Amino acid sequence: MTEEKKSFNIICFSGDFDKVLAAFVLGTGASAFDYEVNMFFTFWGLNVLKKRPGRRANGKEALEKMFNVMMGGRDKLPMSKFNFAGIGPVLMKGMMKKKNIKNVEALLKDAIEAGVNLYACDMAMKVMGIPRSDLIDELKDVVGVGSFIAMADGGQVLFI
Amino acid sequence: MTEEKKSFNIICFSGDFDKVLAAFVLGTGASAFDYEVNMFFTFWGLNVLKKRPGRRANGKEALEKMFNVMMGGRDKLPMSKFNFAGIGPVLMKGMMKKKNIKNVEALLKDAIEAGVNLYACDMAMKVMGIPRSDLIDELKDVVGVGSFIAMADGGQVLFI
Amino acid sequence: MTEEKKSFNIICFSGDFDKVLAAFVLGTGASAFDYEVNMFFTFWGLNVLKKRPGRRANGKEALEKMFNVMMGGRDKLPMSKFNFAGIGPVLMKGMMKKKNIKNVEALLKDAIEAGVNLYACDMAMKVMGIPRSDLIDELKDVVGVGSFIAMADGGQVLFI
Repeated sequence: MTEEKKSFNIICFSGDFDKVLAAFVLGTGASAFDYEVNMFFTFWGLNVLKKRPGRRANGKEALEKMFNVMMGGRDKLPMSKFNFAGIGPVLMKGMMKKKNIKNVEALLKDAIEAGVNLYACDMAMKVMGIPRSDLIDELKDVVGVGSFIAMADGGQVLFI
Repeated sequence: MTEEKKSFNIICFSGDFDKVLAAFVLGTGASAFDYEVNMFFTFWGLNVLKKRPGRRANGKEALEKMFNVMMGGRDKLPMSKFNFAGIGPVLMKGMMKKKNIKNVEALLKDAIEAGVNLYACDMAMKVMGIPRSDLIDELKDVVGVGSFIAMADGGQVLFI
Repeated sequence: MTEEKKSFNIICFSGDFDKVLAAFVLGTGASAFDYEVNMFFTFWGLNVLKKRPGRRANGKEALEKMFNVMMGGRDKLPMSKFNFAGIGPVLMKGMMKKKNIKNVEALLKDAIEAGVNLYACDMAMKVMGIPRSDLIDELKDVVGVGSFIAMADGGQVLFI
C-alpha cells in the first residue's frame, strides 16, 4: 500500500494543560510532516473536546455531574505540576502569551484546520456520562479502543 | 517472517487506577486484534501484579516495607487525578459498575485469558524489595529492560 | 536503507525522578541493543539538562526565574508519587544506592558515553526562559518538534 499515508496516533489520556499542549504540538507537527494524524481522547482528555470550554455539569446522575464540574473544560485545564489551585496554568499562559505561543483553544483550532482527525473514546464517555451532543461538532467520530488499534496499525502510537 | 505476529508492547510504569485501566483495555484490545501483547510492569505498575491485592509489607528492610505498604495492591490503586485520599477511585468504581465496566481485578483476569504476556521488571523489583514469590503465578517472566526492548523490536511500544 | 540503524526516540516530557530514571534506562538499553537513540527533552524534562544540577534562577523575567527555581535541576527532581516535600526521592535514592542502582547524574553520563543523542526542545526553552548556555555542553542540538518527528520517522517513539 505505497499510496497510503503513514499514521501518527496519539492517545490523549491526560487532561493536564501542559500535556494537552504537547499532544497538539506533536499532532499538528506530524500532520505538517505528512502523517495521517489521529488523536484519540479518553478519560481526562475528553475535557479538551467539550463544546463549552468552561465548567459544566455534564451527565444525568449526581456523581457524573460532580465529576464533570470538577474536571472543567479546556480553558480550565490544570497543570501536571505546580498547579497551585489553578495559578500554575495562569502563570504559564502568561509566559506563553509573551512569547507568542498558542493556547489550547488555538491549538485545537490549528489541529482541526491541519486535518488532524479527532476521536472520542466511547467507554470513557459512558463512564463519565458525557453525551456526544456535549462534544464539539468537529469531532470525526466516537470510537472504541478496537477501532483505534486498527487505525494505528503500522503507524506510530503515543500515550500522553 | 510473515508467519510471525506483530507485537504490541506496553510499559506499565504507572500504578494509577485510571492509567492501569487504560493499559489493560489497550492490551486486551490489541490481543483481540491479533497482536502478540507484552505488558511490562515496572515501578508503581508492579502493584498490579502483587499476589495479595491489598496492602502488604513486602520486602525485608524497613524502608522497603514502608514503601510497599504505602503503595498497596491492585484493589487500592490511587487515581492520577481527584484521588482525595482514596475517595476518587471508589466513586469511579461506582460509576463503572453502574455501566458494567470491569474493574482492575477482572481486567487482569481477562488479559491473562486473552493470552496477554505479563512481565515484571527485575530492576524495579530489586529497588522495591519485592520477591518473585509475592507476585502472581500467572506472570510469564521476570525480565530486564534489555529483554523487553528485544521483545518490542519492530512492534508498537507504549509507555503508560 | 538496510545499512541504516533503526531509531528509538524518547520524548522526555516529565521531570519526575522516577520517570527520568525509566527514560534513561530505556534509552541506554536501546542503545546497547544497537538502536540509534534520540532523547528529546521538553517542558519539565529540561531540568535534566541544566548545566548546574541544583536549583538556579534561569531566565530574565521574574516569572521565568520563579519557575526555574521551583523546578530545580536534576539532583532535585521530585517523584511522581510519594514526593512528600522531597523526602520520597531521598528514600528512593537510599534504596537504589543499597542495591547499586545508578542515580540520574550517573545515568546521564552513561547515556552520553553510550552515544545517546540528547536534544532540547526549542519551544519549551523559550517558554521557560532557559538559554542554550544554561544547558549541558554534551547536548547534541536544540531542535523543534518538526525535526524530532522527522528523526523518529520509521522508528519507535515513546512519550514519558
